[in-house]
Amino acid sequence: MEKISAYVTEKAKSELKPYTYDGKVGDNDVLIKVSHCGVCQSDIHLVDGDWGDVYPCIAGHEIIGTVDRTGEKVKTVKIGDKVGVGWQCNSCNNCEYCENEEETFCKENQPTCVEHFGGFAQKVISNERFVIPIPETMDSAKTAPLLCAGITVYTPLKRYVKKGDKVAIIGIGGLGHLAIQFAKKMGCSVTAISRSKDKELESKEFGADNFITSEPKPDSFDLIINTTHISPDMNMYMASIKPKGTFVQVGISETSLDVDPGLLIGGNKSVAGSGIGSPKMIKEMIKFAQKNNVYAKVEVLPMSNINEALNKTRMNEARYRIVLENK
Amino acid sequence: MEKISAYVTEKAKSELKPYTYDGKVGDNDVLIKVSHCGVCQSDIHLVDGDWGDVYPCIAGHEIIGTVDRTGEKVKTVKIGDKVGVGWQCNSCNNCEYCENEEETFCKENQPTCVEHFGGFAQKVISNERFVIPIPETMDSAKTAPLLCAGITVYTPLKRYVKKGDKVAIIGIGGLGHLAIQFAKKMGCSVTAISRSKDKELESKEFGADNFITSEPKPDSFDLIINTTHISPDMNMYMASIKPKGTFVQVGISETSLDVDPGLLIGGNKSVAGSGIGSPKMIKEMIKFAQKNNVYAKVEVLPMSNINEALNKTRMNEARYRIVLENK
Repeated sequence: MEKISAYVTEKAKSELKPYTYDGKVGDNDVLIKVSHCGVCQSDIHLVDGDWGDVYPCIAGHEIIGTVDRTGEKVKTVKIGDKVGVGWQCNSCNNCEYCENEEETFCKENQPTCVEHFGGFAQKVISNERFVIPIPETMDSAKTAPLLCAGITVYTPLKRYVKKGDKVAIIGIGGLGHLAIQFAKKMGCSVTAISRSKDKELESKEFGADNFITSEPKPDSFDLIINTTHISPDMNMYMASIKPKGTFVQVGISETSLDVDPGLLIGGNKSVAGSGIGSPKMIKEMIKFAQKNNVYAKVEVLPMSNINEALNKTRMNEARYRIVLENK
Repeated sequence: MEKISAYVTEKAKSELKPYTYDGKVGDNDVLIKVSHCGVCQSDIHLVDGDWGDVYPCIAGHEIIGTVDRTGEKVKTVKIGDKVGVGWQCNSCNNCEYCENEEETFCKENQPTCVEHFGGFAQKVISNERFVIPIPETMDSAKTAPLLCAGITVYTPLKRYVKKGDKVAIIGIGGLGHLAIQFAKKMGCSVTAISRSKDKELESKEFGADNFITSEPKPDSFDLIINTTHISPDMNMYMASIKPKGTFVQVGISETSLDVDPGLLIGGNKSVAGSGIGSPKMIKEMIKFAQKNNVYAKVEVLPMSNINEALNKTRMNEARYRIVLENK
């Protein structure tokens, strides 16, 4: 057993408090000393009780750190290696999806911070399969958000776009500011859609070709990614998608998506969902990010300021991600 | 001008009556002597006023016939050739979609029987681009429904499935009985979903491996095609789709499609629409149908029995398509 110091949520919407637990490092597990952990909107949902009674909860799933100890069977990383862990930290290792390196679809997929203790801590435990090697040259704070926010937008971009496509990103926050960068570096023309006029300049610095706060023109985009939790005006957005194009929802919206079938049928359009990405995809993304200089724009706070960090994220004041650091 | 005898709908839900009009065969047009024309649910919508005031209307858009006359610039067919025409009979011939042989997406796409006179007639006029050569060896009556019902299901199958995939077809009617055959001949495992238990035996004759009248099991299908106009229980069907799978709506359903975003995001699933197919795709389908012996199961009635044919289609008594024949 390993004594691990962390910050716990004991009930919905309560302040996080210091907490120590005994973690078990199994034969295929890696104990990671957390250097940085991003604060994601999903952490807020967990902490605030939006996703049920998950307490005691140690949230945090955009983790960068170094390998502190390895289980007996671990082969792919060694003590001292710089590594990352995202939303998922285990799976059955046995089903068709695990065998095809599509572990996100495994029925026994284990989130890092639901019924498992996450990265708002000094250390975290993950199955080896979900421990991603991170190059030493990549800035840890700016890389941490790639492990969840980054892969969440990289996966649908990889699936749906090709060079020259027109892509719109709705919501320029933690996910959106990374989506702009990835899409631009994939060779797409990028439109940022936001309610916050004050994000125009930075959106363009991230690589957006256009910035709009109002209704997009019809037939404008091959792909729209909605990174927000706000229920989108589906009929407006579907009309703005070109034939054969796709609208991808990556955040659980407040209500169901209500789509006029005529708008889909006329142009052979699709509404899709996309969630995180497999370890294989994360590794590919990390290479792409290193090569193309894609990083999160972050505000770094000490891990002890965790309640302040959560409040700023709740208030939509993060520009564009708060990352907690263990000194 | 060409005097053309036809059956007209003069106002919504009225009986069709004999009618003669002057048709103009332009330089790029083909005048076709109609031998057969299928009766599609879309014809019922037009005739019954479901799609607005489109009168006088000569419906019919699953046409097989022979070339009777060609405009001066027509090069691809000659008098006497056996040909077919489907839902679309013209486009701008100039936009990116027309240039890419994706004419269905052309903004000026001209339906054969909306603001143009269709195939419930002795003759019909179509732009050359949309006149599809039909091999003499293919039975005309059984081939006519391929021009709309067939291509409507062939297009999404071609786009979304590969050999070995599990496909479900909702609604075993004019479209569904062709979808079963195409999917099976593409190497898929096919489940027919119908409210009519009495269609089980024939569904299996068409090639269905399974037939169900109740709720499908979760995680069963790579693709579901809903050929019905009945609003589907989206949450039930999305749960029955495997990760990365797609639900395709090909008929305009009565209400909007209401989708829980969580069901899409968890498995990277999609809801798509698909409408007809380009001339290029129709030509490919005709080859596939000839090679693999895919034909509609039809009941042939004389063109003069058109009102009886429409009534049987309205009453859902067609097994599986009524085709009108000019003697």
